Amino acid sequence: MTVSGDEVRAAAERIAGRVRRTPVIQVAPGLTLKLELLQHTGSFKPRGAFNRLLSAKEKGELTGQGIVAASGGNAGLAAAYAARELGVPARIFVPVTTPAPKVAKLHLLDAEVIQVGNEYAEAYQVALEARDASGALLLHAYDQPEVVAGQGTLGLELLEQAGMFDTVLVAVGGGGLIAGIATALGDNAQVVGVEPELAPTLHRALAAGQPIDGPVGGIAADSLGARRLGDLAFAAAREYAVPSLLVDEDAIVAARNELWHQYHLAVEHGAAVAYAALASGVYQPAGGERVVVVVCGANTDPSTLS
Amino acid sequence: MTVSGDEVRAAAERIAGRVRRTPVIQVAPGLTLKLELLQHTGSFKPRGAFNRLLSAKEKGELTGQGIVAASGGNAGLAAAYAARELGVPARIFVPVTTPAPKVAKLHLLDAEVIQVGNEYAEAYQVALEARDASGALLLHAYDQPEVVAGQGTLGLELLEQAGMFDTVLVAVGGGGLIAGIATALGDNAQVVGVEPELAPTLHRALAAGQPIDGPVGGIAADSLGARRLGDLAFAAAREYAVPSLLVDEDAIVAARNELWHQYHLAVEHGAAVAYAALASGVYQPAGGERVVVVVCGANTDPSTLS
Repeated sequence: MTVSGDEVRAAAERIAGRVRRTPVIQVAPGLTLKLELLQHTGSFKPRGAFNRLLSAKEKGELTGQGIVAASGGNAGLAAAYAARELGVPARIFVPVTTPAPKVAKLHLLDAEVIQVGNEYAEAYQVALEARDASGALLLHAYDQPEVVAGQGTLGLELLEQAGMFDTVLVAVGGGGLIAGIATALGDNAQVVGVEPELAPTLHRALAAGQPIDGPVGGIAADSLGARRLGDLAFAAAREYAVPSLLVDEDAIVAARNELWHQYHLAVEHGAAVAYAALASGVYQPAGGERVVVVVCGANTDPSTLS
Repeated sequence: MTVSGDEVRAAAERIAGRVRRTPVIQVAPGLTLKLELLQHTGSFKPRGAFNRLLSAKEKGELTGQGIVAASGGNAGLAAAYAARELGVPARIFVPVTTPAPKVAKLHLLDAEVIQVGNEYAEAYQVALEARDASGALLLHAYDQPEVVAGQGTLGLELLEQAGMFDTVLVAVGGGGLIAGIATALGDNAQVVGVEPELAPTLHRALAAGQPIDGPVGGIAADSLGARRLGDLAFAAAREYAVPSLLVDEDAIVAARNELWHQYHLAVEHGAAVAYAALASGVYQPAGGERVVVVVCGANTDPSTLS
């Protein structure tokens, strides 16, 4: 079960005008950054959120009950933003441990925030119950076809913006972004997944032959802290032979600081993971290889840049 | 005495490959940001620096004595960077009051830093003496034709990148950037200068009929704190009818925070000045007017973003 290229192209038409066409910048010969951190709400997530909500709207499945989602991070912000733009209510379920600033950001986007349970799995279960009881639409953070197809629109933009390129480095959490981009690019370029050593969902799934639960932690867990890879992402990783590279905590911190000092981009740790593979030497391009690095999130406390 | 469009086009050829082609992003209908903060060293200044140094090199005027410049800010960083890239030494003269982090940044770019005098006018005088004694090339922060022509290459990029637009909002310090962009754009669009109320060099020059010295201060003085407008900038402002809009300190701070929270751009106060005119309502576009705002600098302490 994978998403098709046609679904990604349909998503691009559907969400046009709702998301920003984020720019690319060539920072060195053979090295281009895709500046997706400049997207609405500071991450790529609105692409999938709008595609999910607008697809449902076309089918009459988006009602006055609005949407439910379980995420206090980038997926939650995108859910709240997309719902507000489309004029439907959003109920966002988050654990009771969610930091107050994250809750405040959701409130700023007019979402109703329900703090329940001690971790996301519990909040997600309550979100499912709310969906069943109310008829609201569930927006998953990564493992829905419309979400994957929406994230893939970033790949279509790259084909138009970045000239010829061979390789795209993309961070992996639940895997919606690698799946979408790999589908969008097809044979045009190779997608390489990059993950924190302490949250290696793709690595674990490839080793086990299927997505499996595992511990997550580390400095990038706030955005890449899914417990397991999505089924759609696993299918896409198989179909497009997406490998997993691992980077350690020091490499992530160093890459984030380098993105600020060299390129003037203030990014969250998860968004530095893909660049970390290159900066640390974990990924070494061949001579003449043209690499694109997706810089995918800006939801960070800038006072922690050094 | 103004710089010609041909000089700007020649500059673009001369510095190609030395500076980044910085991207634009359309953030709303009719509103595009030019992301010049992503330039090498975090400001537009390398455009002019490379054009000045490479022009001199063509004439045999760039010798092993290298260059001298007087600036601990963006112009100094660009001077040091351009000199290093071209393999010549840079001596940067700054007042003794220059904060240690600025001196350290110049050292990181392999510049020799000479701390002398209590303000820039004194450091500049010593730089002139060093130029005369050594035969080094003087790189002025804004008032040299090659510098203005180099800054103008940003305007040529806009013509290629931003589609049709009517108005470009640009911050003014010494005026090199407005002069260059106005020359590059000619009749294609109107340049509007924006200045802090506490450092209004263009405003003062237009009122007096010529550039005159005046006090400078305020939160953006580290990048827009020239004492007087350059003569080249004044001539260009006359020729292209560039007006001056003034923004107050609160508007600058608010605009800088908005650029971070809405657009995920961490910018210095001076680089928020142009956007402040729009955000505060000091500049009100007509219906259907297409505006470009130049976001021109990232040399800031990100911990001061709130």
